Amino acid sequence: MAADLLVRSVRPLGGDLADLHIRHGRITAEPPPPGIPVLDGGGRIALPGLVEAHTHLDKSLLGLPWHRNAVGPRLLDKIENERRVRQALPIDPRRQSELQARLSVGHGSTFIRSHVDVDTECGTAGIEGVMATREALADLVDIDLVAFPQSGLLVRPGTLALLEQALRLGAETVGGLDPCAIDRDPKGHLDAVFGLAERFGRGVDIHLHEPGEMGAFSMELIIERTRALGMAGRVVVSHAFCLGMPDAAVVDPLVAALAEAGIAVMTTGPASRPAPPVKRLMEAGVVVCAGSDGIRDTWGPYGNADMLERAMLVGLRNNLRRDDELALALDVVTTGGARALGIRDYGRAPGCAGDLVLVAAETAAEAVAQRPGGRTVVKRGRVVARDGALTVT
Amino acid sequence: MAADLLVRSVRPLGGDLADLHIRHGRITAEPPPPGIPVLDGGGRIALPGLVEAHTHLDKSLLGLPWHRNAVGPRLLDKIENERRVRQALPIDPRRQSELQARLSVGHGSTFIRSHVDVDTECGTAGIEGVMATREALADLVDIDLVAFPQSGLLVRPGTLALLEQALRLGAETVGGLDPCAIDRDPKGHLDAVFGLAERFGRGVDIHLHEPGEMGAFSMELIIERTRALGMAGRVVVSHAFCLGMPDAAVVDPLVAALAEAGIAVMTTGPASRPAPPVKRLMEAGVVVCAGSDGIRDTWGPYGNADMLERAMLVGLRNNLRRDDELALALDVVTTGGARALGIRDYGRAPGCAGDLVLVAAETAAEAVAQRPGGRTVVKRGRVVARDGALTVT
Repeated sequence: MAADLLVRSVRPLGGDLADLHIRHGRITAEPPPPGIPVLDGGGRIALPGLVEAHTHLDKSLLGLPWHRNAVGPRLLDKIENERRVRQALPIDPRRQSELQARLSVGHGSTFIRSHVDVDTECGTAGIEGVMATREALADLVDIDLVAFPQSGLLVRPGTLALLEQALRLGAETVGGLDPCAIDRDPKGHLDAVFGLAERFGRGVDIHLHEPGEMGAFSMELIIERTRALGMAGRVVVSHAFCLGMPDAAVVDPLVAALAEAGIAVMTTGPASRPAPPVKRLMEAGVVVCAGSDGIRDTWGPYGNADMLERAMLVGLRNNLRRDDELALALDVVTTGGARALGIRDYGRAPGCAGDLVLVAAETAAEAVAQRPGGRTVVKRGRVVARDGALTVT
Repeated sequence: MAADLLVRSVRPLGGDLADLHIRHGRITAEPPPPGIPVLDGGGRIALPGLVEAHTHLDKSLLGLPWHRNAVGPRLLDKIENERRVRQALPIDPRRQSELQARLSVGHGSTFIRSHVDVDTECGTAGIEGVMATREALADLVDIDLVAFPQSGLLVRPGTLALLEQALRLGAETVGGLDPCAIDRDPKGHLDAVFGLAERFGRGVDIHLHEPGEMGAFSMELIIERTRALGMAGRVVVSHAFCLGMPDAAVVDPLVAALAEAGIAVMTTGPASRPAPPVKRLMEAGVVVCAGSDGIRDTWGPYGNADMLERAMLVGLRNNLRRDDELALALDVVTTGGARALGIRDYGRAPGCAGDLVLVAAETAAEAVAQRPGGRTVVKRGRVVARDGALTVT
């Protein structure tokens, strides 16, 4: 639903007071007609809608009784534990994705990319559940689905056909996961992932937890395929812990190659892991976006879907303290997210989607560092949350 | 002011429903008399008052116009920049410390240790300001002052005499700072710090940012002096980044020696620095506490004085995900803080101070991971904050 709205007395990105006119759901430079609905911003900062670039809507445990976590330390422990818990509880992707998406909207996210598990146990049930939520919440938030082989692709025969089925059902993006460490066949895994992407004309978003030189090797293979297929701007490497390794002789060429190949990097600002150096990547011209990853799920109890808090965590992880550095953290959850995910009509220019979040902060830096609550959120000219509470049930 | 209070229907540490009886400000096992004031906990979790074990009350910029941060990257840049800004603004320690302490109380802290700058420019003005706040807020929160040579001790002649004056005025604890990296004379610095502590019969709390082997060396010198003076239980090493170095051949003996010497470690859970391994320290018997460090000051824009959020950040930094691991993070901001700071009457046993924070969470793990707001805080039997708002002006 595209609406008309005059947003009065806001400070775009913390700048001077301005009015923003949204017509048929899009920013326009034309003068507002008399009688247009008005939202009084009261001097709050207006940011473009926040971009949640990496989460897992299908498997949050929000709204369920507290899940006592006793999972083992390895990645594989968490993957296997999750499959067990998913069946035992059970977790309903339709219900859980709507709960989490609503939480996101209340914090100001107007676009969500969700990886959704596809495997030989659940098939495409997760995809179908999140797609139903996408339809139900179409007026509140845009949701982009990544068909994600969480339990492995080639190591679980049958998964590739299910990924293809997920794309046919309506998932936008082809997912991948640790080509060496989990799938044990980096060439095979990436040929399969990029092969699907090529056949369906879709983007790619790969979970790359692999550390150090192993991760760097997988990243090289991703870069090679991105170049070969001319997929600049359509590939995201999520997590990319290997970029946090200290060896500049390995990292420097990777950073340059990512920039040249037009590959974006997604980070959660992980405090306990080597992490992509956000400032350095951005200075080199790499697009960086951020995500909550799992929110209160079987992997861990953290997360609240607030992308300003995520910007803060990215800032803390990257030691961003100066106002000019906090602007980078803010970019990661706004413009960087839009560029990484290929959202074309993003921003303040005429014609862009009328997606805004109003934040009671003095400066954009304060919005990141202090993440004030009580936000008002506008989606395509419609007020979907007012002072922190969703206006749509 | 010590009050009587019956706290009904709370779940201590997330356990079974119970009533807690506070008499003359202290927990008692005796049955409550008729007519005693009642606080209905409504099934919320009751935690002992949170312990803010390391902050800088004298120099927050809370309540002031946003400070545009453009500080340089080195520790020394931040120290020098702060002295400049302090005079230029100016920052009033009395006013700022009260603002921050009230913020702390609203989040459930009932005890605060504040390092307070002492140097040849400001003298003991910071100490006097924070002491005035301590007196003004005596019914809300206990405040412990560390006389802190932020600008160096031996490198700034005259500072040692000012530290001594600060102790005479009423600061409890002797502070220190990077004996090698800042003061350029580790033996001289630590002899001076521990000498003061010995003469005045006080504890020691040393900022040790020094990384790697340099920090390990300074830590050895601290351990030697703690042993020689029989100061087990009275020394805290704050930050202790060197314990985050990867070389087990250096770290393992240090951890064992800290445990044996009875030295506590304070961490903020710093995401961008090597950090003390909290779980490993606690398993080795080292007491670990946590602090906000500076809150919205010239060093950086972060921080909100919420020690449950700090526990979350410590959890994220240390990859604590399981419920039994989150219990460690909670311990760090409660019992660990009390042990590190020598608070004897802390906890639920009869005779302990009636200091509580009620949190609307299902489990103690949720209280850490999700840090619910709207807390009710009790100090010595008196309700000082109700549902997130201070009841005392």
